Amino acid sequence: MSFRIGSGVDFHRLEAGRPFWLGGVQVPHDRGAVGHSDADVLLHAICDAMLGAACLGDIGVHFPDTDAAYKDIDSKVLLRRSRQLIREKGYRVINVDTTLCLQEPKIKSYVPAMQQAIAACLDIGTGDVSVKATTTERLGFVGREEGVIAYATVLLMRDGAESLE
Amino acid sequence: MSFRIGSGVDFHRLEAGRPFWLGGVQVPHDRGAVGHSDADVLLHAICDAMLGAACLGDIGVHFPDTDAAYKDIDSKVLLRRSRQLIREKGYRVINVDTTLCLQEPKIKSYVPAMQQAIAACLDIGTGDVSVKATTTERLGFVGREEGVIAYATVLLMRDGAESLE
Amino acid sequence: MSFRIGSGVDFHRLEAGRPFWLGGVQVPHDRGAVGHSDADVLLHAICDAMLGAACLGDIGVHFPDTDAAYKDIDSKVLLRRSRQLIREKGYRVINVDTTLCLQEPKIKSYVPAMQQAIAACLDIGTGDVSVKATTTERLGFVGREEGVIAYATVLLMRDGAESLE
Ligand SMILES: [Zn+2]
Ligand SMILES: [Zn+2]
Ligand SMILES: [Zn+2]
Repeated sequence: MSFRIGSGVDFHRLEAGRPFWLGGVQVPHDRGAVGHSDADVLLHAICDAMLGAACLGDIGVHFPDTDAAYKDIDSKVLLRRSRQLIREKGYRVINVDTTLCLQEPKIKSYVPAMQQAIAACLDIGTGDVSVKATTTERLGFVGREEGVIAYATVLLMRDGAESLE
Repeated sequence: MSFRIGSGVDFHRLEAGRPFWLGGVQVPHDRGAVGHSDADVLLHAICDAMLGAACLGDIGVHFPDTDAAYKDIDSKVLLRRSRQLIREKGYRVINVDTTLCLQEPKIKSYVPAMQQAIAACLDIGTGDVSVKATTTERLGFVGREEGVIAYATVLLMRDGAESLE
Repeated sequence: MSFRIGSGVDFHRLEAGRPFWLGGVQVPHDRGAVGHSDADVLLHAICDAMLGAACLGDIGVHFPDTDAAYKDIDSKVLLRRSRQLIREKGYRVINVDTTLCLQEPKIKSYVPAMQQAIAACLDIGTGDVSVKATTTERLGFVGREEGVIAYATVLLMRDGAESLE
């Protein structure tokens, strides 16, 4: 049986009047994240954690923000491609745990939809996808609502390794 | 055998003249953390990592800071309840690793007491609870002693799965 | 079979005209990290993740920055000693995943050399060492190029536990 762990962190600026994509869901808010893609900070952190666990480089290597192909792209496409990349190395996701650091808005009511969106991309159950959130208690650039941070941790298992459970 | 990983991060403001609870221990200092509960940033990060690994939501879902029941509460109560929540899903903690990011004071001499307090709440040995610390080299809000950050990572195993060791 | 996870985070200031050591490699840049040792933020985060997973304290406990023995020391020495410390407790590294948060320069072309340097210190393959990087989109002290952050996550297995794969 072969396990691997990975972790990712991503940062995006917030700007007034932008759509705010978080965990594959558009969250109503007076500002949103800025980026080359749809700027979904949570999905990017998960992509990076998966790629890192499988030692496949990072999201910038696979989906460069200088490539017009990824302009405004739905980050669910990037997440599905990340899953495909780790599958090609024989890995599958056991579980994903994430934390969004943002001051506003409260995202609690959107979490089930985010779990569904992420689980669908990764072909796992929603019970294996965790989305947590915290403010920074108004500290730093997150507290000033200038930006948002997401952390993700994943556990992978080599496919084909039979479960002993 | 079934493993799960989780990670948590928590932030609190520091204010002069407040008690400073860290890892279940009151640390003598001229300032302390502000919060609805006792503001123990380290225990909160561990709660979140455990809840996240078991896909049970986050600390804000279980212990909302709008609920008077949690006003000034000892966060060791929250940590024990988090353990109970993961046990109800069949999980137990293999090990916990944490990092406190704070500029002052040096916490090295309090680490053994923190490990004991955390291990007691989780019903594991102190050799399975790690508390590390770092300054931010005077960078950012941590460096200006406006706030403190804690990171936690946990590995869970499904209870009943026999150890092969 | 016995697994353990650990995580580390490290921070260093950047100053003009300093050598910039990252992941055991000197990266050409107009500024570099400041510290008592060679200030290699990535190797320090890995040391801390390994020590934390094995519950052996932190890098400041083992290699205090008040000890002249560690003045300007090559952090690869610290990484090898960290490996030795976990080996003495019967652990070996399964995989390491890291993220560098820095605004400049692009480190992509140095990643293979970093993987080699880290893998050599840990006596594992380069396919078990991941080095990722992200900017903070010009947010905070990293975005202002005042400092750099590194995150590391490691999975350890107790030596002697036979692989089932
Ligand atoms: Zn991103
Ligand atoms: Zn808290
Ligand atoms: Zn350092």
